[in-house]
Amino acid sequence: MQNPVLVEVTRGELVESCHRGAFALVDGEGRLVAGVGDLDRPVFPRSAVKLLQAIPLIETGAAARFGLTDKDLSLACASHSGEPEHLRRAAAMLAKAGLDETALECGPEWPGEPEISRDMARRGETPCQLHNNCSGKHAGFLLTTVHRGETAAGYVGPNHPAQIRVKAVLEDLTGHSLNVDVCGTDGCSIPTYATPLRDLAGAFAKIVSGRGIEPQRAEAGQALMRACMAEPFEMSGTGRACMTMMQAAPGRVFVKTGAEGVFCGALPELGLGFALKIDDGAKRASEALAAAVLAKALETADAELSGVFSAMATAPLQNKRGTLTGEVRAVLPDL
Amino acid sequence: MQNPVLVEVTRGELVESCHRGAFALVDGEGRLVAGVGDLDRPVFPRSAVKLLQAIPLIETGAAARFGLTDKDLSLACASHSGEPEHLRRAAAMLAKAGLDETALECGPEWPGEPEISRDMARRGETPCQLHNNCSGKHAGFLLTTVHRGETAAGYVGPNHPAQIRVKAVLEDLTGHSLNVDVCGTDGCSIPTYATPLRDLAGAFAKIVSGRGIEPQRAEAGQALMRACMAEPFEMSGTGRACMTMMQAAPGRVFVKTGAEGVFCGALPELGLGFALKIDDGAKRASEALAAAVLAKALETADAELSGVFSAMATAPLQNKRGTLTGEVRAVLPDL
Repeated sequence: MQNPVLVEVTRGELVESCHRGAFALVDGEGRLVAGVGDLDRPVFPRSAVKLLQAIPLIETGAAARFGLTDKDLSLACASHSGEPEHLRRAAAMLAKAGLDETALECGPEWPGEPEISRDMARRGETPCQLHNNCSGKHAGFLLTTVHRGETAAGYVGPNHPAQIRVKAVLEDLTGHSLNVDVCGTDGCSIPTYATPLRDLAGAFAKIVSGRGIEPQRAEAGQALMRACMAEPFEMSGTGRACMTMMQAAPGRVFVKTGAEGVFCGALPELGLGFALKIDDGAKRASEALAAAVLAKALETADAELSGVFSAMATAPLQNKRGTLTGEVRAVLPDL
Repeated sequence: MQNPVLVEVTRGELVESCHRGAFALVDGEGRLVAGVGDLDRPVFPRSAVKLLQAIPLIETGAAARFGLTDKDLSLACASHSGEPEHLRRAAAMLAKAGLDETALECGPEWPGEPEISRDMARRGETPCQLHNNCSGKHAGFLLTTVHRGETAAGYVGPNHPAQIRVKAVLEDLTGHSLNVDVCGTDGCSIPTYATPLRDLAGAFAKIVSGRGIEPQRAEAGQALMRACMAEPFEMSGTGRACMTMMQAAPGRVFVKTGAEGVFCGALPELGLGFALKIDDGAKRASEALAAAVLAKALETADAELSGVFSAMATAPLQNKRGTLTGEVRAVLPDL
């Protein structure tokens, strides 16, 4: 099946580039409320399911034992920008279990935002593993591991209890057996399991609707979601899409980006979840489409808020002298 | 018409993302030697036609008058990386006509390569217009303008003699009238005219074959091409695709990247030109496809060199710990 063009990039009067993709917006029963494209092909969710991967941090009791705050929980679900506040909090989380940066196995990386990376260079800094956008998530894995009395080393491997717990949550909420045939290695070295968009969306719908999910698991997911919505800077970073979209509707929408053009999200008050992927992996397109999906989801429930996200689904493009040259715009078919 | 998938990005055993596109490989008579996808839809060539845009620098006599070397000519065709040598040369070219950085109208930009940008930040530098990847091309426009005794200010505008000369070359070599309906504003503020890939490829084939082109114009284009092939650092930058591909076959292939997934190129000894665009604008895909097109073009003429480019058409992907996670690979259909 051929996915349709969902995002166009214009220059002058012409469409210069275009992005194909698919999205699923589903309710707690798994019914498709809106969607387009191939929703049954397995796609790697990458960082868009960090909230699901953090559920064992709550369920094991590790978050309670180490007294994690909403900001800590948000960072445990983060693809953060590597800003100084993110680093300090990740280090503090590790310190709660007597660990430091050397326990991490995510690898070092320069922050992806050029200005943050240049700020570091100006200060003469080089990146360590705390700068990795996943360091908060990995700190969460390590706290869970320490709480359970497991050997921390190797916690990124698919057979370590930390990853087995994560896989069990994903299998429960998506309804798929996640085996080696759909397993890839993520940028931060943990397994990522390819799953159909329909079922990724369904996992988030289960959490917010409480349907088809154990009550304690729903509450764990909701607690993480409340934390992310209350403290979006910790799970994202200054000026970035997830933070901007959640700030536009405090407590009413959850969104999380993933590499290669993936987004997952939820609308708690509507009991809906969504998942999307741009075929070619482009971030500019996944961000425009995420805003358009939120606009679609809110169309009848809150036309005004829907309009806010609809406006975010088009972004102007400027050149180096500030001249408007075109735009990135989501173009959903009539659904 | 629907362009086919020409580049796949894998993770583990699965294809995670894919890129559609089109390419045309043509001879001096405009015959399609190989090609796939929609070759008749106008696409913005962006920086991939900088060599064509530099032809007036030769034809007006400005290059001879100001004593430009091969390195200068290569920089006049460049999307350079903003490395210190690029900046010094662009400034020196401007100085030949009594001008400095303030005469440029391309706008300032941080270099696109993160390491070069961080090196600048480490030295406490901020970008000026010389850092713009197009500063060499703009220096060429300005030298031509000064040589002709024209007012330099406004040289980026579509009605300035500098851009009228460029447009006349493009119209001559592509066989299209380039009017406002296919005109966009490029990143460096000059006009860019959307043109079918078939005819962009044809322009480069005319230059290297000498067919369907005035001899002086062919010689001007060939002089620029020889300069780029002899001095590929000046028209590209350390470790970048254009430089790497031209260094793999010195004097035998010319390639030039453009924004939004475009490449143009030529094989002088075969009298062939090519042009390609990735629908979604991804650089990783345009680079893999450019290597695959070169491999295809050389298939019968030089199997060994074809194999070198074929190998470049697949690039491994590593994560932050250096683990191999997948690859980017061109997947041409049987042609």
